[in-house]
Amino acid sequence: MIYFDNAATTWQKPEIVYQTVDDVLRNKSGNPSRGSHQIALEASRVIFKARNKVANFFNIPDSRQIVFTKNATEATNLVFKGLLEKGDHVIISSLEHNAIARPLHRLEEEGIISLTVVDTEEGKEAFLKNIEGIITDQTKLIAMTHASNVTGNILPIKEVGEIAKQQGVYFLTDVAQTAGIVPLDVQELKVDFLIFTGHKGLFGPQGVGGLYLTSDIKFKPLLEGGTGGSSKERLNPDMLPDKYESGTLNTPGVAGLKAGIEFIEKTTLEEIKAQEEKLVEQLMIGLEKLEEVEILTSQMGQDKVGVTSFRVKGVEPATIGHILNSKYDIAVRTGIHCAPLAHQSIGTYNTGTVRVSFSYFNTLKEVEQLLKALQEIINSKDY
Amino acid sequence: MIYFDNAATTWQKPEIVYQTVDDVLRNKSGNPSRGSHQIALEASRVIFKARNKVANFFNIPDSRQIVFTKNATEATNLVFKGLLEKGDHVIISSLEHNAIARPLHRLEEEGIISLTVVDTEEGKEAFLKNIEGIITDQTKLIAMTHASNVTGNILPIKEVGEIAKQQGVYFLTDVAQTAGIVPLDVQELKVDFLIFTGHKGLFGPQGVGGLYLTSDIKFKPLLEGGTGGSSKERLNPDMLPDKYESGTLNTPGVAGLKAGIEFIEKTTLEEIKAQEEKLVEQLMIGLEKLEEVEILTSQMGQDKVGVTSFRVKGVEPATIGHILNSKYDIAVRTGIHCAPLAHQSIGTYNTGTVRVSFSYFNTLKEVEQLLKALQEIINSKDY
Repeated sequence: MIYFDNAATTWQKPEIVYQTVDDVLRNKSGNPSRGSHQIALEASRVIFKARNKVANFFNIPDSRQIVFTKNATEATNLVFKGLLEKGDHVIISSLEHNAIARPLHRLEEEGIISLTVVDTEEGKEAFLKNIEGIITDQTKLIAMTHASNVTGNILPIKEVGEIAKQQGVYFLTDVAQTAGIVPLDVQELKVDFLIFTGHKGLFGPQGVGGLYLTSDIKFKPLLEGGTGGSSKERLNPDMLPDKYESGTLNTPGVAGLKAGIEFIEKTTLEEIKAQEEKLVEQLMIGLEKLEEVEILTSQMGQDKVGVTSFRVKGVEPATIGHILNSKYDIAVRTGIHCAPLAHQSIGTYNTGTVRVSFSYFNTLKEVEQLLKALQEIINSKDY
Repeated sequence: MIYFDNAATTWQKPEIVYQTVDDVLRNKSGNPSRGSHQIALEASRVIFKARNKVANFFNIPDSRQIVFTKNATEATNLVFKGLLEKGDHVIISSLEHNAIARPLHRLEEEGIISLTVVDTEEGKEAFLKNIEGIITDQTKLIAMTHASNVTGNILPIKEVGEIAKQQGVYFLTDVAQTAGIVPLDVQELKVDFLIFTGHKGLFGPQGVGGLYLTSDIKFKPLLEGGTGGSSKERLNPDMLPDKYESGTLNTPGVAGLKAGIEFIEKTTLEEIKAQEEKLVEQLMIGLEKLEEVEILTSQMGQDKVGVTSFRVKGVEPATIGHILNSKYDIAVRTGIHCAPLAHQSIGTYNTGTVRVSFSYFNTLKEVEQLLKALQEIINSKDY
């Protein structure tokens, strides 16, 4: 099968990821930070090394500033529901995924925060200007995806981070679609919170994600419970990362994430990015030749990752997806992609889109096969 | 090595669990409920079948009443922080783990709930009577571990569930130490919330746990975000289990949990329980012969699972654990075990205990080796 749904999850992982998960599950999965016998210490070392690896990968000064969660959604909820207080104002972009939008909608409905969605479709300059104009004394946080999971367009997080810094506002970015493809440096980017997931571009298994947070921010944890150390305290201990990591961690999952990052480092981000750019270029050239195809993109500029949305005129996206899957063994995603705001922005709220998303393991030949299949479907009108 | 820390996590899993996790990670880990292509559907089927398996195992009428979480701690936080409201009164036992105690302490400190800890050490009859006496119109929830993770003693959850039912109070029990060993039937037990973890007696990998909840209870989710379906709704959809399951699930972990439960069903709970009872009996007989050993137990009665705490007079538990690990290659847990309330109850708050906890894979020969090692350590006074 040809798998083009990597924005949902990378299905094909590097062989070393499979082997590491199996090895750690079989041989090293004591309970990390709980117990001082050999297998518990092995598990603690697995977590410690993975934390260092993630810190190094994002240029995070201290690995204790990494909190492991089960996915990016847990990490956004952790920050929003811990940090935000009555009266706070929050700014997001109009390309957000529900992982950012929904917890904020909840806080808005409860009367805790006010929320401004800044439109991305007037272009980058207007977007930045609008953000600057809308910041008030009540603005506590700007939260923004690094790249749209619908169109692949990259948002100007460096510039937004600088605005936030100047205005004394916290800045959170969700790198679910860019980590493992675009170089990310939390110090250069001036982000206060970086949300990542393990199972997409970082090539880890599902069940692990996390959060980087600057060390000077403290708020109440989302999950409270056993933390291994400081067990006598009534509440979670105040130190990082224990404060925000309650309950048993996913030791094999965390180990798999580390193996995925090591594969990326060995391959180099440059090569991965170049490969995705090659694939996207060929796809865009091919799609543009298909008259019935409408490529859907945001006005945020040319920079994009390997995620592309399109529609075929007069055909439901689900129908295209179904034929690609059943007749050509090609997996794409169709519909709303958990990001209704983004679909409102690009004008596909009613129909959704066909989304093609690449990983490093996709090939130019596979893109050719997709384009050929689309041409055949359009020609045959068999839908 | 001899592994006696199964109350923290079962290290040795059935071979089929390792194989299933690897197979699902390699071949079936699309993003469940996200996409209608072959691999996404494979992942959805994995989750669907596992949900049915868990439901069947606990005699849950509808598998949608199972919410998968990353661990038991996420599940307790989900219920407590969603269900409890200003003015509510909550009752817990004095044997609770921090997974129950800490989130409730948080709500108590914030002035949201009042909390009563009912002492277990006056014995079972007094315990039940005290619970009945303390229920008021404000009491919304009784939350209680099924068995102490320190002493292994089983709490009378059936009787407590009946009291709760009669008084119109919700009843939550945490079966982290009993699931996979003691038969559990949510309908017979009259529990409203059953909290389980995957990585202990159920033989799943770390990174998966969950919650059963009666279908007539609705409250706000702990995590909000993408749920796959109903993406256009501003908040999580109101249906189960989607309402409480945001973000990508741990597909290989959930599959491993299902494989673990299937192993238990094939082996039978009767055989597993009988094996643990045999091991405990031999351990208790052996420990009682060691004059310097003080077995630590709760006054909740004779019924216990394969978890036993003891101290050696005049020696720090950590020292015993260290010698067992380094000289005899035997892994036990020492210290406070994330349950300070329980240590206060049994009088070991200052020292902690040495804890020996079994799984089905332990043998009588291993227990003999432990007893022999303890005898040697005591005789040699080499600590």
